[in-house]
Amino acid sequence: MYELGVVYRNIQRADRATADALAKFGASTVHEAMGRVGLMNTSMRPIYAGAQVSGTAVTVLLQPGDNWMLHVVAEQIQPGDVVVAALTSPNTDGFFGDLLATSFKARGARGLIIDGGVRDVRTLTEMQFPVWSRAISSKGTVKATLGSVNIPVVCADALVTPGDVIVADDDGVVCVPAAMAKKTLEAAQAREANEGDKRAKLASGVLGLDMYKMREPLAKAGLRYVD
Amino acid sequence: MYELGVVYRNIQRADRATADALAKFGASTVHEAMGRVGLMNTSMRPIYAGAQVSGTAVTVLLQPGDNWMLHVVAEQIQPGDVVVAALTSPNTDGFFGDLLATSFKARGARGLIIDGGVRDVRTLTEMQFPVWSRAISSKGTVKATLGSVNIPVVCADALVTPGDVIVADDDGVVCVPAAMAKKTLEAAQAREANEGDKRAKLASGVLGLDMYKMREPLAKAGLRYVD
Amino acid sequence: MYELGVVYRNIQRADRATADALAKFGASTVHEAMGRVGLMNTSMRPIYAGAQVSGTAVTVLLQPGDNWMLHVVAEQIQPGDVVVAALTSPNTDGFFGDLLATSFKARGARGLIIDGGVRDVRTLTEMQFPVWSRAISSKGTVKATLGSVNIPVVCADALVTPGDVIVADDDGVVCVPAAMAKKTLEAAQAREANEGDKRAKLASGVLGLDMYKMREPLAKAGLRYVD
Amino acid sequence: MYELGVVYRNIQRADRATADALAKFGASTVHEAMGRVGLMNTSMRPIYAGAQVSGTAVTVLLQPGDNWMLHVVAEQIQPGDVVVAALTSPNTDGFFGDLLATSFKARGARGLIIDGGVRDVRTLTEMQFPVWSRAISSKGTVKATLGSVNIPVVCADALVTPGDVIVADDDGVVCVPAAMAKKTLEAAQAREANEGDKRAKLASGVLGLDMYKMREPLAKAGLRYVD
Amino acid sequence: MYELGVVYRNIQRADRATADALAKFGASTVHEAMGRVGLMNTSMRPIYAGAQVSGTAVTVLLQPGDNWMLHVVAEQIQPGDVVVAALTSPNTDGFFGDLLATSFKARGARGLIIDGGVRDVRTLTEMQFPVWSRAISSKGTVKATLGSVNIPVVCADALVTPGDVIVADDDGVVCVPAAMAKKTLEAAQAREANEGDKRAKLASGVLGLDMYKMREPLAKAGLRYVD
Amino acid sequence: MYELGVVYRNIQRADRATADALAKFGASTVHEAMGRVGLMNTSMRPIYAGAQVSGTAVTVLLQPGDNWMLHVVAEQIQPGDVVVAALTSPNTDGFFGDLLATSFKARGARGLIIDGGVRDVRTLTEMQFPVWSRAISSKGTVKATLGSVNIPVVCADALVTPGDVIVADDDGVVCVPAAMAKKTLEAAQAREANEGDKRAKLASGVLGLDMYKMREPLAKAGLRYVD
Repeated sequence: MYELGVVYRNIQRADRATADALAKFGASTVHEAMGRVGLMNTSMRPIYAGAQVSGTAVTVLLQPGDNWMLHVVAEQIQPGDVVVAALTSPNTDGFFGDLLATSFKARGARGLIIDGGVRDVRTLTEMQFPVWSRAISSKGTVKATLGSVNIPVVCADALVTPGDVIVADDDGVVCVPAAMAKKTLEAAQAREANEGDKRAKLASGVLGLDMYKMREPLAKAGLRYVD
Repeated sequence: MYELGVVYRNIQRADRATADALAKFGASTVHEAMGRVGLMNTSMRPIYAGAQVSGTAVTVLLQPGDNWMLHVVAEQIQPGDVVVAALTSPNTDGFFGDLLATSFKARGARGLIIDGGVRDVRTLTEMQFPVWSRAISSKGTVKATLGSVNIPVVCADALVTPGDVIVADDDGVVCVPAAMAKKTLEAAQAREANEGDKRAKLASGVLGLDMYKMREPLAKAGLRYVD
Repeated sequence: MYELGVVYRNIQRADRATADALAKFGASTVHEAMGRVGLMNTSMRPIYAGAQVSGTAVTVLLQPGDNWMLHVVAEQIQPGDVVVAALTSPNTDGFFGDLLATSFKARGARGLIIDGGVRDVRTLTEMQFPVWSRAISSKGTVKATLGSVNIPVVCADALVTPGDVIVADDDGVVCVPAAMAKKTLEAAQAREANEGDKRAKLASGVLGLDMYKMREPLAKAGLRYVD
Repeated sequence: MYELGVVYRNIQRADRATADALAKFGASTVHEAMGRVGLMNTSMRPIYAGAQVSGTAVTVLLQPGDNWMLHVVAEQIQPGDVVVAALTSPNTDGFFGDLLATSFKARGARGLIIDGGVRDVRTLTEMQFPVWSRAISSKGTVKATLGSVNIPVVCADALVTPGDVIVADDDGVVCVPAAMAKKTLEAAQAREANEGDKRAKLASGVLGLDMYKMREPLAKAGLRYVD
Repeated sequence: MYELGVVYRNIQRADRATADALAKFGASTVHEAMGRVGLMNTSMRPIYAGAQVSGTAVTVLLQPGDNWMLHVVAEQIQPGDVVVAALTSPNTDGFFGDLLATSFKARGARGLIIDGGVRDVRTLTEMQFPVWSRAISSKGTVKATLGSVNIPVVCADALVTPGDVIVADDDGVVCVPAAMAKKTLEAAQAREANEGDKRAKLASGVLGLDMYKMREPLAKAGLRYVD
Repeated sequence: MYELGVVYRNIQRADRATADALAKFGASTVHEAMGRVGLMNTSMRPIYAGAQVSGTAVTVLLQPGDNWMLHVVAEQIQPGDVVVAALTSPNTDGFFGDLLATSFKARGARGLIIDGGVRDVRTLTEMQFPVWSRAISSKGTVKATLGSVNIPVVCADALVTPGDVIVADDDGVVCVPAAMAKKTLEAAQAREANEGDKRAKLASGVLGLDMYKMREPLAKAGLRYVD
């Protein structure tokens, strides 16, 4: 449940080195390494292709059509953070544009995840300030009603607690709880170590059926071949 | 309400210089300058990134699955126009492709806004003929039922009267009524004049909280900080 | 109706030369040449712009959240095939990623059409292995429940029989039944032969109204011009 | 384009007798009688089945998540009015509940059309105060930002000018411009006069093919019968 | 692939007694009895609750916004048929209303399945003529372009061949291929025979975990209990 | 983040009397009493009108197309519970039907909230076992992959911790954290105490503008009246 009208200034961020190291694995590998959980839904898309970031979450809860709290959250950003903006109800207005991006960037933010709309996407692309959002919209917002900063939020179906690690790329956005970040990093590294070999085998024409020894379980499940 | 089967040949276009001058401000600034109204909904997306146009609206009302009237509207295009195509009911067929684009371009059109589907997007991209649409679809259309040309239409939630100014870019599509074009242009210019300063301050680390003097109204609204 | 748990090894592929020749016409022309049928719905989008392929369909039916059968279908791929993956119910999980793509490519597949989600899109783009999908998602899948391979499937509203020709580009995906492939190719060639002339006329300012002799039927349908 | 922060007190309502007489024909017949235009989109659904009303429109423009103006519009309601609420951007919050309904009913309103959400639907059903809405939602709203009352609005794709006639039933919502109300009523009456006969013939087994003399045009269009 | 402009008069209907007997099992049991295939998607909803029908399919392919072929299909209806209407592209217009329903009923149709819109739903409910549709809409349609009658169609993701058995109720719509109707009926009967016992056990408090002997496979899959 | 393959047997349920007492206030009043938070999204709809329940949450996390864990959660139900079923990715299959409902009811469950599909809705309605779901679907599910029971879940955008209070009616579903249940009940009672008076005043024609003293703040915000 959400507490409204409050800003938590002290949050426990995940270990910086761990948070930083997760970026290179990307959302899909990290999601897999966590046991296939913590993923935001597929409506969250990057405004340009190719961005791949990780960082510690500072969270903000917005009211529909109102971006007041984005100015409040800016002050709480530390270098290496990713801002995660949730909404109290679905809305696609353009809550965020180039001026806020300039400010967020100056504070050291690596990107924005917002379950709403964003605008000035051409300028944001030129600035290389990545945003993952539900929509792109020119619609401006008012500054009239309080939300909160650094409370746990549900953003695009994922629970994000301040200080968690966010990993985002062209595949989507995943949230790694701070307490699991280290273990997830190790699991991701282990997965990657394996992948080179597998890729080489598959590229040479070896089938996954054989490499993963699937023929027997498939037969057991009843798969029939018909000529 | 729509009148069917009629083509208005004489429409009052907004002042050309004003219509042309609005392009460089883009949809978001123009929308803001108008008081946050007149925006088409976020399902209208450009077929390629980077196009930014403005022009005077010639309008056309299409029947679902029928693009007959796009041939009729072509004759009414004058250099500097943007064609705005509304539908009598939702439909995503590919009403428009490279041949019509060739014709529209020859007539001087700067782009097409269509609350339906478009096809041949690779060729349209090569031609640099920008289209904002609800969908991309190979589905062809018939030529059997009349709509109208140059009547007021509702396109993607926005009312467009022939002669209004259309401004479209990566952020979306906004319609400026002809009677408000001049005032909107002035407001947009005023906004832009301000933005350089603001951007520099924010880039230097000044917070919007201070620049916009938000701390007092936030406190008054009850915002609490917790350490 | 779907038969589950079966793999048909011998399918009758459309003539190779015909299947290959259709690529250059693209989805829209081919769809038109077939009489405006056989098109997948507009939710099927390419993961990167510019790919344009044709090939013979090998089909696979997947269970939601389960990509086991993608490993089974890999073995049935022959050079020049396009894999068409249908689902037993709507699901946007990331069924397919870079490892499977490596395997499919090694087998000679030209692309994947999947009425679900795909991941590792950055790597797939670098590999230039084109995928048309309903979604992009990091969400991994299990390998627990059988579907089928090379049965007729309904994929994104289109019926695809193994061996049919698939044509896909930025406009979408169309399925040409094997028995109609030759006739469709001829019709596509005939259409293209015509288009150069038409394009030149339209580019010179001739109106479609005149080129297609539409003025009389429009008048007959009751179109009125008002000055 | 929308003017914000203004309430027009004097509007020209359509003729009362005409507005009242349209209810019994229902949305579909009235829509047909107008030439198949003026219909709101199919996301507008009644909160309970069986309501069928007509009345003169008083309009209100709301901001997302803010129902302040619904209190303002209440004062402008006259007996026989239907309130039409449009939004400046898509939002499904519960803008309207049983208290406002009590007030609207006391003022003589016959129903509410709202391109957003509504709540207390059980009580509204018991009160028999009909609402057509895009959503049902418990989500409350704030009272912080101005919209307008009795300006022309686009509601669910239809342009509604204050004083127009609204006709709503289980099939949906249609808006009849005040200037066309009389003519539309006559056309609706003419249609209905015809329908009894037609229905009797069809019920006796006569085919529409014969009753509407469609066989010849179908043959001309190329319809083939295969035994 | 669809053939346009043709009406097949002679179709091979599934055995009447079998087709009739399937109604009482309902869509879910029949779908299960077929091996969980053949289901239309969940956007197909009944216009009123409580209808439960089965019958032999006569099919019709409609163009968007055009209901001409519904008059053509009427002539092909025999007592015990259910009409299945597919569209060449997505469209929610009101293709079908009370007059057509009167005609269909007079011909012996048991209901309509339409992947589009329907209107006059109050009257249809009074007539107890059940319709499963994607939308309800007052929007009328034209009669200008040919589709086909009694060709195989894809309707709401399901392939329907003329003569197949359609089973529809509050849970949705399922299509049983004529060749499988008998076997499906037997499987449905077998399922039902079992269900009384199961229901009684579950009602007495026996757990599915024990009744279906799931504890061992769950443990084997790794399920842990924590106190 | 989700832990998979685990069942928590001991959960701290909210106080029974409090949980029970919340039902009569309904979702909207409770949501308001909590400060407008904790609401599930508007895609959650009841399968029949008129049900209004509250109870303590037992939670279950399901895999797409797999209802195995619903059998596991049945054993954890205590009288007065409401089962809340979340999914690891979007899926509308029919996870729940009359047999499971018989079992849940025998265990004392008051209803089911499921962010997926449900079937046998006619029988469930006859049994008066209320379900709030995203979809209705005949599509059956497999029993192959583990989820979890009684872990915190995100269901339809709301975070639900086992033992929280669920309140559901025709307006939707709200989750009250156990720790806030008592305070929320008191706030709901206070709201209701007030409403009788307000309703009477509004029914007598007093305007909300006057009753809530809105005229001054509206004027201050700049509202203009035009005659």
